[in-house]
Amino acid sequence: MDFDKLLSRMQELRDLSGLVGLACWDQETYLPPKAEPARASQLATLQGLYHERLTDPALGALLDEAGASGNLTADQKAMVRVLRWERDRAVKVPTALVRALAEAQSQGVATWREARKKNDFTVFRPALERLLRIRREQGDALGHGGERYDALLEAYEPGMRVARLTPVLDALKQKLVPMVRTLTERPPPRPVFAGKRFDPDRQWRFCLKLLGDMGFDLDAGRLDKSVHPFTGGSHARDVRLTLRLDEKNPLPAIFGAIHEGGHGLFEQGYSEEHFRTPIAAAPSMGLHESQSRLWENVVGRGRAFWGHYFPALQAELPEGLGDVSPDEFYAAVNRVERSLIRVEADEVTYNLHIVLRYELELALIRGDLPLDQLPGEWNRRMGALVGVTPKDDLTGVLQDIHWAFGELGYFPTYALGNLYSASLWNAAKREVSGLEVGIGRGALLPLRDWLREKIHRQGFRTSAEERITAVTGHGLTDTDFVEYLKGKYSALYGVAL
Amino acid sequence: MDFDKLLSRMQELRDLSGLVGLACWDQETYLPPKAEPARASQLATLQGLYHERLTDPALGALLDEAGASGNLTADQKAMVRVLRWERDRAVKVPTALVRALAEAQSQGVATWREARKKNDFTVFRPALERLLRIRREQGDALGHGGERYDALLEAYEPGMRVARLTPVLDALKQKLVPMVRTLTERPPPRPVFAGKRFDPDRQWRFCLKLLGDMGFDLDAGRLDKSVHPFTGGSHARDVRLTLRLDEKNPLPAIFGAIHEGGHGLFEQGYSEEHFRTPIAAAPSMGLHESQSRLWENVVGRGRAFWGHYFPALQAELPEGLGDVSPDEFYAAVNRVERSLIRVEADEVTYNLHIVLRYELELALIRGDLPLDQLPGEWNRRMGALVGVTPKDDLTGVLQDIHWAFGELGYFPTYALGNLYSASLWNAAKREVSGLEVGIGRGALLPLRDWLREKIHRQGFRTSAEERITAVTGHGLTDTDFVEYLKGKYSALYGVAL
Repeated sequence: MDFDKLLSRMQELRDLSGLVGLACWDQETYLPPKAEPARASQLATLQGLYHERLTDPALGALLDEAGASGNLTADQKAMVRVLRWERDRAVKVPTALVRALAEAQSQGVATWREARKKNDFTVFRPALERLLRIRREQGDALGHGGERYDALLEAYEPGMRVARLTPVLDALKQKLVPMVRTLTERPPPRPVFAGKRFDPDRQWRFCLKLLGDMGFDLDAGRLDKSVHPFTGGSHARDVRLTLRLDEKNPLPAIFGAIHEGGHGLFEQGYSEEHFRTPIAAAPSMGLHESQSRLWENVVGRGRAFWGHYFPALQAELPEGLGDVSPDEFYAAVNRVERSLIRVEADEVTYNLHIVLRYELELALIRGDLPLDQLPGEWNRRMGALVGVTPKDDLTGVLQDIHWAFGELGYFPTYALGNLYSASLWNAAKREVSGLEVGIGRGALLPLRDWLREKIHRQGFRTSAEERITAVTGHGLTDTDFVEYLKGKYSALYGVAL
Repeated sequence: MDFDKLLSRMQELRDLSGLVGLACWDQETYLPPKAEPARASQLATLQGLYHERLTDPALGALLDEAGASGNLTADQKAMVRVLRWERDRAVKVPTALVRALAEAQSQGVATWREARKKNDFTVFRPALERLLRIRREQGDALGHGGERYDALLEAYEPGMRVARLTPVLDALKQKLVPMVRTLTERPPPRPVFAGKRFDPDRQWRFCLKLLGDMGFDLDAGRLDKSVHPFTGGSHARDVRLTLRLDEKNPLPAIFGAIHEGGHGLFEQGYSEEHFRTPIAAAPSMGLHESQSRLWENVVGRGRAFWGHYFPALQAELPEGLGDVSPDEFYAAVNRVERSLIRVEADEVTYNLHIVLRYELELALIRGDLPLDQLPGEWNRRMGALVGVTPKDDLTGVLQDIHWAFGELGYFPTYALGNLYSASLWNAAKREVSGLEVGIGRGALLPLRDWLREKIHRQGFRTSAEERITAVTGHGLTDTDFVEYLKGKYSALYGVAL
């Protein structure tokens, strides 16, 4: 088989998706405000072309030919498998449904914003109803073995299934709820940031220094500002992170930088011989998130890390941190709270926010939960899981944009990221000698190098759970994560967990 | 005829070329250095797709149908005419030749850089030979009435012909050569910038202020930094200018901003109902350049302009300009010199640099000049035209990048821009009452508005010379420009011209 013909198709697709990445990055960073409608058209055209090329029957024939060929390398087989997977899903959904979803998405986001302004879920409800109907139809078009949600989850976490995921999240929930209770009964750490100012330029400089120490290559990537931080770009040598700077609080920038840096290292770490092919990619959002969470939480909110970095941070931000000790800082960035907003949640309660969303969206997709009961169910479950009840829709069901985009099946990948991060951390500690001592001296590259070899360079050659199993010796589990929390927080809060 | 089908084809093409614009802008501003090869692939893919869609037979059929239809509006007819013109040219050139040119261009640029490093034209010569061969072939494939250069010129200046252009440039040359002699025999103005420092941030701020006063909409465009200033972007509401800041000299930034601002106003000025169609475009590079030159030279190097702006500039840059009077500044920015480098030339000698290139490239395309004689011919003619002879290839034949890209036929558009700018200026003075007095008070919008109505909003509905004729009452001429120079420089140098 002449693989080059197929390869050049793969490269064309990757170039187009790289350009989508550039146009989206630009939209969030430098696009002039009046250019919004023009950019929307440009993106629709580009994504339409991508879809057209992906579903082109000639590509299907090339993939068939490759599938039947006996002389492909292992990497070539993986490329064929991944592209066929993507193409089959694209082909199965009728064009009319794709278009209906795109329309419902823009309507969804618009009415979600409107509903937030009015703090009223009912404004958003008809659009969500429509999105749910389309996503259910889409799930059925994609096909599944009786659990429609599986077909949606597959887009974000290929290979993962409800039957596998639910028991793990159930077990996790059972352990987290009492842990949160115990920790929030203890006296909270001293608030150290209130009423102070943290120079944005110096926050920026400190973040750049951190990214450099993590091994993020700023000659193959960038750091810019945006309202919502994200990792984007057009290629493994063009990885673009963004940050939000807050004069009143340095934590969004610092942990944003470490988090996006974790994503960015994955993107920069693909094997050069996989560039412009389907396997220069993460095998799942959950595995991608495991990198950002490992860096942000396990490393970046660790005592060893701040033992090294706090003096430097204090020197950059003397007005704000002059009277704070390293231990106070460490306690403040790990404060466990019964709070309402997912994106501000600490790492103990965070997964409960996810479990809440997972259970609700699973019920919505199954048709087990009428939409008019959604806000009430949200609030009731929030009380049961986290122990605090939203007083309105804004701090409840309307807080996340995901559903407004019709993104159902995405939330669990955050929890998977957390669970995988702890398992990877245990494996890294076993295999990299002196890992924690090194981090306490600011030596972050040994972890980067280990992750690069074990995770990043592997790309999409296997599924996420296969990769995790290969690296850690076992598949998805809540054990490593729960043990990690117990060890860290029993010491920090001086209480048995 | 159902015009919508054709219109959506037009819109798709415009979206794709907008994305090319974005990717190129990014390449010159924010692209990480290691991403260069990835960006080259992305651009090649995107441009290949553009070419594929443009030459698609289905588009040809739609254009035929539209051409035969009796119920098109005048604007629709213009859209069909322009797109057919572009498509016909694309179809005529065989794919193999397109690919050969692309390869020869990258080789051309690479060896040109190499040749510049070695200050040796012979390093570049084989690549230029190849480019010339391909461009000649391309000219023949495009077709012409006996003058092959016309087919190349057509890409940059649709409708212009050697038979029309040569006599005008010949007449201009005859008048400029003695004018340069007379002016350079006078004592030169005092050099006022040497050995001083000009704060880059304050240069930047002053340039933004100028652009705002010119009516450049920074909500529908941007200003960024790049090594080589240019005007780019993706749409009339996304027009991106770039500047180069020099601590030792404020002029590159100031006149760069005014120049690119002139281009930018054209791009922002297209009629909204033409957006995403082929007529939201300048009808020629020459007419585009007329806008940048009119603003940069006629307005921006004028006495009235600096009567208003010099105090503000002086206040921004007191270290550098504290001891300079407005008259000294005006004289310094209009210093006429026998100099070797086109991009640094004043407005009197500038067109002679163009005439030199035009005559040489015409001879090269005709096959009348062997390449090994090119450097010598350059130097000889430079002596005859400007009165100064290059001592090496770097300051002679190797100074411009255009030929390294195979861009033959481009240079004359700079001269056309200058000639058109003077004719437009005369028309504007006739039609806009109090124009010059207003400029002396910093009122730049009346000129912007007049140009918007007469030039920008018209887009590509007619050819450049048709538009100039409609606005000024006559076609291409050197008279207005020569009279403009005589008036300005006889006063400035105190000598009869």
